[in-house]
Amino acid sequence: MTESQLIGASKEDIDTPALLLDLDILDGNIARMAALAADTGIALRPHVKTHKSPLIAHRQLAAGAAGVCCAKVSEAEVMVAGGILDVLVTTPVVAPEKIRRLISLARQATVGVVADDLRNVRNLSEAARAEKTTLDLLVEIDVGQHRCGVAPGPAAADLADEIARLPGLRLRGFQGYHGALQQVVDLDRRSADIRQALDLLLESANVARRRGHAIEVLTGGGTGSSATDIGFHGLTELQPGSYVFMDCNYSRIHWGPDGALVLFGNAISIWTSVVSCTSADRIVVDAGWKSASCDSGVPILKAIDGATFSFAGDEHGKLSVPEGTRIAAGDKVELVPSHCDTTVNLYDRYVCVRNGKVEALWPVAARGKTQ
Amino acid sequence: MTESQLIGASKEDIDTPALLLDLDILDGNIARMAALAADTGIALRPHVKTHKSPLIAHRQLAAGAAGVCCAKVSEAEVMVAGGILDVLVTTPVVAPEKIRRLISLARQATVGVVADDLRNVRNLSEAARAEKTTLDLLVEIDVGQHRCGVAPGPAAADLADEIARLPGLRLRGFQGYHGALQQVVDLDRRSADIRQALDLLLESANVARRRGHAIEVLTGGGTGSSATDIGFHGLTELQPGSYVFMDCNYSRIHWGPDGALVLFGNAISIWTSVVSCTSADRIVVDAGWKSASCDSGVPILKAIDGATFSFAGDEHGKLSVPEGTRIAAGDKVELVPSHCDTTVNLYDRYVCVRNGKVEALWPVAARGKTQ
Repeated sequence: MTESQLIGASKEDIDTPALLLDLDILDGNIARMAALAADTGIALRPHVKTHKSPLIAHRQLAAGAAGVCCAKVSEAEVMVAGGILDVLVTTPVVAPEKIRRLISLARQATVGVVADDLRNVRNLSEAARAEKTTLDLLVEIDVGQHRCGVAPGPAAADLADEIARLPGLRLRGFQGYHGALQQVVDLDRRSADIRQALDLLLESANVARRRGHAIEVLTGGGTGSSATDIGFHGLTELQPGSYVFMDCNYSRIHWGPDGALVLFGNAISIWTSVVSCTSADRIVVDAGWKSASCDSGVPILKAIDGATFSFAGDEHGKLSVPEGTRIAAGDKVELVPSHCDTTVNLYDRYVCVRNGKVEALWPVAARGKTQ
Repeated sequence: MTESQLIGASKEDIDTPALLLDLDILDGNIARMAALAADTGIALRPHVKTHKSPLIAHRQLAAGAAGVCCAKVSEAEVMVAGGILDVLVTTPVVAPEKIRRLISLARQATVGVVADDLRNVRNLSEAARAEKTTLDLLVEIDVGQHRCGVAPGPAAADLADEIARLPGLRLRGFQGYHGALQQVVDLDRRSADIRQALDLLLESANVARRRGHAIEVLTGGGTGSSATDIGFHGLTELQPGSYVFMDCNYSRIHWGPDGALVLFGNAISIWTSVVSCTSADRIVVDAGWKSASCDSGVPILKAIDGATFSFAGDEHGKLSVPEGTRIAAGDKVELVPSHCDTTVNLYDRYVCVRNGKVEALWPVAARGKTQ
């Protein structure tokens, strides 16, 4: 079966391993996040590092997103080439070659970038000025993750001062992101942690505003903090990524006070075949570390209650199923990835399904674009 | 700098993250493994799941390899299309669509496949017969890994009986592979375990030979067992993959009785840049889970004594360096992957360097070919 012949085929006919994308669930997730933000005055700027697809970004924009976030310049290049004309690069861009490419993008689209270093800000200014363009700059603030970002408060405002006075740059605001908070399971605990991180960002904005800066944008947050962030009304812009697809890890966290409510559905899965089944405890499938990321644990088996998956090498996984489960070589099963972003990055395309039929094949256009 | 402009450039000019391949070390590794097997009568059939590149496979063949191993049909397709005309698929091929593709390959090249299931063997026979071609079959035997493979001894010989009498199939021999043994650190312990696994394979071959089968091929082994396997003279064919590149995990195992000798050099590395360095304990690089696999631990930093790398998300890593180390945003460093196969599978190309200069760009042609 050629690629185009696959359109309209049933799910059973899809060769494995494959990355399935359920379009109904995808559309539901996009609509649900859009509804959360609607009428709150808080803009949605979804992070495309999860899906790496301009096609999905266009759906997010159609549902009301203000633009997108990209992790790297090469990812932003794929988005702009795919018609996404408002991108924020959420990691500092330091290398001269990358700065040059960022400036070229800024002539084709609205491009923002974060920075946490004075020398870097000066280089960005010089490059933008030389190309007679203007780059939107946001100061990245360390709100507790201790990764990138300047210290909150006066240090953040100091860098804002420099950005404001340098040619070629437009100071837009501050970014504060705290990845580890996103998956704190308990909602009360997570909300308290999010509040603490947000306060560091708001405090920094206040210092900068007292110095006369506009600080129009306070951007940050992710899927796990989204509902809480919207409730706090502190950020002007939300950066959730994983909500479009969800994964086992995000499914574990509590989304409501009852600990049960999950806002988003699992839209992607790994379609895998049993290739060997020599005994009830030796059920081997064709998906291993090259087909499912393991940075955040193991995928979960769909549809077979009590069954579990374990990695068995680069190219193999093993299933453990309850006694009496009928399963044989050739059977296909679905796994929900433990981490959607890193699993998607292993595949060249989504096999898009709706009601069990293949509707489209979408490239993971920015796959491997880590530069 | 365009792709072709990169040829001849210095390593410092390579954009990050990138997968560097040192051609001198690669050539040395290929020559060293070839020398181990030379004049022993044991054939080398390197596993291409490590490098996924017909160009590297051609170098292995030029150094004396008899053919290559592939993990999957789609990987074999890339090899045959790249001019590699003797491939063994080391995982059972079960789906009707994949069997059809395997048979097509068998008309273009010498193609073997392993099997551990009677129904599968019958399907392979039927498909080969219908296309008027012959497929080489090897019985996969479980020599202790408890993944794929029939039980050693009579069960293995029973499947051999069936293969021998079915049309379209040529019984070539047995495969016995035990991945977990490859990285047993202590050489004596590893050798003893390898002996035990080998004996299960030899015993199975003896049963089959007593039933009148030729059993010309006994194939298995990997990088960690290679020297020992050659010493035992039991296998007729070795399947090492990782030796071409090596990685941190294989560097840890003992290669000689003194526990120090390492036979192969680290040929690949992850080239990464510092993108943020707001304090001595916040050195952030642009390589995270999307640029280095983590299934087998963390990469090791080259060139900075006492420095360590830790993952800090999909797109970020953090360095911990000894006090007084001079390092700043924009600096580039090299990481040795913990697991070469799964790291290579994240990249679209090798940036091939020799003496610090870019000599070639080679595609990772079978990247993502897990089908």
